[in-house]
Amino acid sequence: MRAVVLNGAHDVSVETVDDPGLSGPDGIVVQVESTAICGSDLHLYHGDMAEPGVHLGHEFIGSVVETGADVDTVSTGDRVLVSGVVGCGACRECRSGWPMRCLNAGSAVFGTSLELPGGQAEFAAVPGADASVRRIPDGVTDEQAVLLTDILPTGFLGASRADITPGATIAVIGLGPVGICALRSALLYSPARVLAVDPVAHRRAHAERIGVETIDPADGGTMAQVLEATGGRGADAVIEAVGHDETINDAIMSVKPGGTVSVVGVSTNLAHPFPMAIAMFKGITFRICVADIPSTWDSLIPLVANGRLHPEDVFTHRMGLSSAADAYRVFDGREDGVMKVLLDPTA
Amino acid sequence: MRAVVLNGAHDVSVETVDDPGLSGPDGIVVQVESTAICGSDLHLYHGDMAEPGVHLGHEFIGSVVETGADVDTVSTGDRVLVSGVVGCGACRECRSGWPMRCLNAGSAVFGTSLELPGGQAEFAAVPGADASVRRIPDGVTDEQAVLLTDILPTGFLGASRADITPGATIAVIGLGPVGICALRSALLYSPARVLAVDPVAHRRAHAERIGVETIDPADGGTMAQVLEATGGRGADAVIEAVGHDETINDAIMSVKPGGTVSVVGVSTNLAHPFPMAIAMFKGITFRICVADIPSTWDSLIPLVANGRLHPEDVFTHRMGLSSAADAYRVFDGREDGVMKVLLDPTA
Amino acid sequence: MRAVVLNGAHDVSVETVDDPGLSGPDGIVVQVESTAICGSDLHLYHGDMAEPGVHLGHEFIGSVVETGADVDTVSTGDRVLVSGVVGCGACRECRSGWPMRCLNAGSAVFGTSLELPGGQAEFAAVPGADASVRRIPDGVTDEQAVLLTDILPTGFLGASRADITPGATIAVIGLGPVGICALRSALLYSPARVLAVDPVAHRRAHAERIGVETIDPADGGTMAQVLEATGGRGADAVIEAVGHDETINDAIMSVKPGGTVSVVGVSTNLAHPFPMAIAMFKGITFRICVADIPSTWDSLIPLVANGRLHPEDVFTHRMGLSSAADAYRVFDGREDGVMKVLLDPTA
Amino acid sequence: MRAVVLNGAHDVSVETVDDPGLSGPDGIVVQVESTAICGSDLHLYHGDMAEPGVHLGHEFIGSVVETGADVDTVSTGDRVLVSGVVGCGACRECRSGWPMRCLNAGSAVFGTSLELPGGQAEFAAVPGADASVRRIPDGVTDEQAVLLTDILPTGFLGASRADITPGATIAVIGLGPVGICALRSALLYSPARVLAVDPVAHRRAHAERIGVETIDPADGGTMAQVLEATGGRGADAVIEAVGHDETINDAIMSVKPGGTVSVVGVSTNLAHPFPMAIAMFKGITFRICVADIPSTWDSLIPLVANGRLHPEDVFTHRMGLSSAADAYRVFDGREDGVMKVLLDPTA
Repeated sequence: MRAVVLNGAHDVSVETVDDPGLSGPDGIVVQVESTAICGSDLHLYHGDMAEPGVHLGHEFIGSVVETGADVDTVSTGDRVLVSGVVGCGACRECRSGWPMRCLNAGSAVFGTSLELPGGQAEFAAVPGADASVRRIPDGVTDEQAVLLTDILPTGFLGASRADITPGATIAVIGLGPVGICALRSALLYSPARVLAVDPVAHRRAHAERIGVETIDPADGGTMAQVLEATGGRGADAVIEAVGHDETINDAIMSVKPGGTVSVVGVSTNLAHPFPMAIAMFKGITFRICVADIPSTWDSLIPLVANGRLHPEDVFTHRMGLSSAADAYRVFDGREDGVMKVLLDPTA
Repeated sequence: MRAVVLNGAHDVSVETVDDPGLSGPDGIVVQVESTAICGSDLHLYHGDMAEPGVHLGHEFIGSVVETGADVDTVSTGDRVLVSGVVGCGACRECRSGWPMRCLNAGSAVFGTSLELPGGQAEFAAVPGADASVRRIPDGVTDEQAVLLTDILPTGFLGASRADITPGATIAVIGLGPVGICALRSALLYSPARVLAVDPVAHRRAHAERIGVETIDPADGGTMAQVLEATGGRGADAVIEAVGHDETINDAIMSVKPGGTVSVVGVSTNLAHPFPMAIAMFKGITFRICVADIPSTWDSLIPLVANGRLHPEDVFTHRMGLSSAADAYRVFDGREDGVMKVLLDPTA
Repeated sequence: MRAVVLNGAHDVSVETVDDPGLSGPDGIVVQVESTAICGSDLHLYHGDMAEPGVHLGHEFIGSVVETGADVDTVSTGDRVLVSGVVGCGACRECRSGWPMRCLNAGSAVFGTSLELPGGQAEFAAVPGADASVRRIPDGVTDEQAVLLTDILPTGFLGASRADITPGATIAVIGLGPVGICALRSALLYSPARVLAVDPVAHRRAHAERIGVETIDPADGGTMAQVLEATGGRGADAVIEAVGHDETINDAIMSVKPGGTVSVVGVSTNLAHPFPMAIAMFKGITFRICVADIPSTWDSLIPLVANGRLHPEDVFTHRMGLSSAADAYRVFDGREDGVMKVLLDPTA
Repeated sequence: MRAVVLNGAHDVSVETVDDPGLSGPDGIVVQVESTAICGSDLHLYHGDMAEPGVHLGHEFIGSVVETGADVDTVSTGDRVLVSGVVGCGACRECRSGWPMRCLNAGSAVFGTSLELPGGQAEFAAVPGADASVRRIPDGVTDEQAVLLTDILPTGFLGASRADITPGATIAVIGLGPVGICALRSALLYSPARVLAVDPVAHRRAHAERIGVETIDPADGGTMAQVLEATGGRGADAVIEAVGHDETINDAIMSVKPGGTVSVVGVSTNLAHPFPMAIAMFKGITFRICVADIPSTWDSLIPLVANGRLHPEDVFTHRMGLSSAADAYRVFDGREDGVMKVLLDPTA
């Protein structure tokens, strides 16, 4: 089959590789029908945390073509969406939808190591299938289903961990695809005001189309503008969807005393310069996570299937898998107003 | 009157100063009957954050000798305990017991600035009295009442913000007076196991008398021992009561995936080296605060008054106010197995 | 001034009565600018719980024309909305917005007793004003403000006490004005599906315009239809907005095992035939309340002022105060597709 | 084998019956080592809800002697405690410990129907074993383990559903074995005061030995005494552990405005005379359930195993299985100060 392979920094190619087989009796093999490139793939693309030869991709959906003997919940022919994150699939945490809390230390992300090849490919092997896949129900489009494999759950967990109460004023820092998913998820908790922050004009325009206020940090800084908009007090909650030291600290500085900062941006920093004394005097709650994707499906799938949540406009580019090298270049370079790229494994 | 004055680093003396008057119509004047030295006073004693001439002390109780015209809840002659922290006293947050969230930016700690002279003195002026003092009820001893002005509420807020569920395994890092108050408060939430961590033997012995397991970090490190005690998983919750960079990071490294770290230690670091990537992969909740003392009284005062909470054994030394210079030296030097020093303003 | 007076069952008239004066130093007098008839007024109109001579009305807004010496938060000339429910105004519960939990047993509803004359009048005296009124901010229309004095908060508390999680399937039984407010409030918590139940076609049509599914109980009963719509399981949460024995029991029978029933309908039954054994086997949570109006304003006022919540279409009739007798007759008779009647004190 | 069989009202005998076999591939067979009579068995003994020929008993522990092919978590020879309540064992709710919420409508109680024979016998078949049994860990005695099969979890769920906060004043109505377990569980949430209510002197004495205040309802009624003890306000939370109409209503009448009533008594009433208007004006939360036993084990087993919870003194009588008829008579007649009877299947 064909798969997107990371050769080194800024170097991916589509290669013909062996077809995957079942990982074990609890696994399935999926014929990939749609897949996407995630912002976190760029960490690998830039050479961070990467093993050469990795098959990339953790956002994919498809049809089940083979099932292990112990799989109960899906059958050959079922169309499924696959969690970008898996655990052992058997422990209490995995079975409850929290693979990042796997009691057997089995947490892993597709497409980030040689042990768990990714889904930017024609086929993918999925271990622990009962815990990590879900049938795609009527009413959910393929593009929506792909978003349910990672970034919509990531944004939703970020919002659900931000302690938003009806009528609150919140800020969302970073309006890339994850930030937009976080913003739409935050609206599920009915804040009265959302201050959406990003330096890129077309991203702010996207947020404005959703119906929220926007802030360009170039106009005097994030903190200053959030404080001004809130009478000097700070936002009740701040969601951060970038992962940079500066934007995480902007979030901490922009939240009100007693408020909550929830980070869904990816940080690889082991010594982030955290303004601890400020956090202490304000008495904040600070949360950060890699999303436990399946834990969100009982909430998100009905909302999408019933037309109450429409995240799919984050897709700006649709390309064939064979153009993956171009796709990564465009996405990394933020060319053409790109937000998110869908890849078609049949092309 | 006499008051303890900070002259400079490692230099305090008892001086005769003007008697305080009412701060305003919402204020009262208290004749101090008992006061204590807090670990956070040592930050001032060491020269951090200090203005020369400050009258020290934020832990004190006494009798009301004068009341402003707008004070509703206490009268002359009432014996009261006073929150070490005050706000404007009038806004919704202050009236609800959260002076650190004061909507009028009025948060302040007694005895840390010239504007709000402290209570290690014969008399003290208390602004916003309706929000910041409470009558001492029957069943509460003077020593208990002094602890209710700061460190028991601080420990309790640390415990209550740690998301402890019945049957959990938790760690408490730091077994000084605040740590012991946090430990006793944590027990209110009924963990099955408490791992109490401190390098000082007599502090660990104190925790063992309370009935919990102890860890000496010298025996291989805090994280390694907590992980070993929890089957490699980490504690469900960790309370940190030191405030050093190392111990805060020990807390983060020792908590389980999905767990909560709650810091009540005082950190003055504006760029704490936070292991953000670890926090992210574990998906933790991190909290830190300066305690909103009055918010805890409805819980703590009945528990103390009904004999269900006994924090008073943290007092190891009782001295006269006139010996304050000695008291600070003993406390700072951790001499004589000192845990906490009570000062008697009449001596 | 003129006021609507209850003479007896089904007998109201507009009478000239003495102008009200301040109730005390914590009170204000309001010149009423807009007022409404509430479904619960009909309990009085039908002769239940009524004292002859009562001045009716607990939903009103207006301008402050006189203030007591102790009132801090509003001044003469301010336009205010007034909680339909008041307490002593001074205790911790009242000051926090929960007058029905008044520690001084001061809970009362305007217009239900001779002691607290109502607001269907040209002027009204409001005790404990700091706890029971709020300035009407920019962005809130008069009709919206009237709804914020009772039925929108009532519906919102019903929804907020129903434990709705994003993606849930819920039922709302009763689509009168309170039911519609509960339905709109429930949507703030982002259920995926709402089953709105009412026997009256135009009320169901109202719900359908809001965008939810409807059930006519005549088509086989409420329980049967809710169970069928939920695969035999029951709704995650049910809000009841009628108050009859049958509809409350429909709610209990229609909720899933482990689910929550939240009642905002008014019941005067002291021996409601509660299906306790069913409730026990299902393990439900059951809540009912008279709404603590002010507790909701921090959430609701920003949502209305920012255009995120539009309850005002419940008003179907606008009449002059002088036509109050007609207004009660039309409202009681459910004539002309009436949902809710606004009264103009100047006409 | 021998088993306790219900022949009719007030008529049980020990009969020789067929040994049970595996219920299916997810089942196990247990050799019973200890079993007990529960207050709810008396409903059957009195002829309520009973099928003649039922094998009684839902509280039992023992050794696994046979396992189905699909059982993962226990093996032959393991000593296990068994949930008195089971579901299908396979659905998400059952696997999470909530068999009463079984998505396949499989909720059932051992020993209440011919389909699920009970554990007052030498052997018992347990379906869905992975969801309904747990190995007995070191530190848990046999008597404690028997209590973990029903009444300690029942009391604990009652307490955990009562919204008790540290420092609260609560009431517990009914001090039989379940009431004592509820009382001990309530103490895990650290109320400052517990008012324990029962007309039987030795039961009140039991509560006093635990260290709480007691009320004899004969001294003027439950409500009047609870109100007097709480300054007229009512208890913050009330746990009911009887199930009679009068005591449930006592609970509702004794709770404060805004408080919570949590019922663990068994009611078979389908038209309980609920004081709805009172509940409404007070704005209460009311909960009742049959306990989802396994959901409590992660909390309770560590607490018992670590010596923090000691419920075992509810056992007053230890008898052989062969004396079951006597045992039921003694228990039903409340003879000899009986609280709870343990039965030994080997005798």
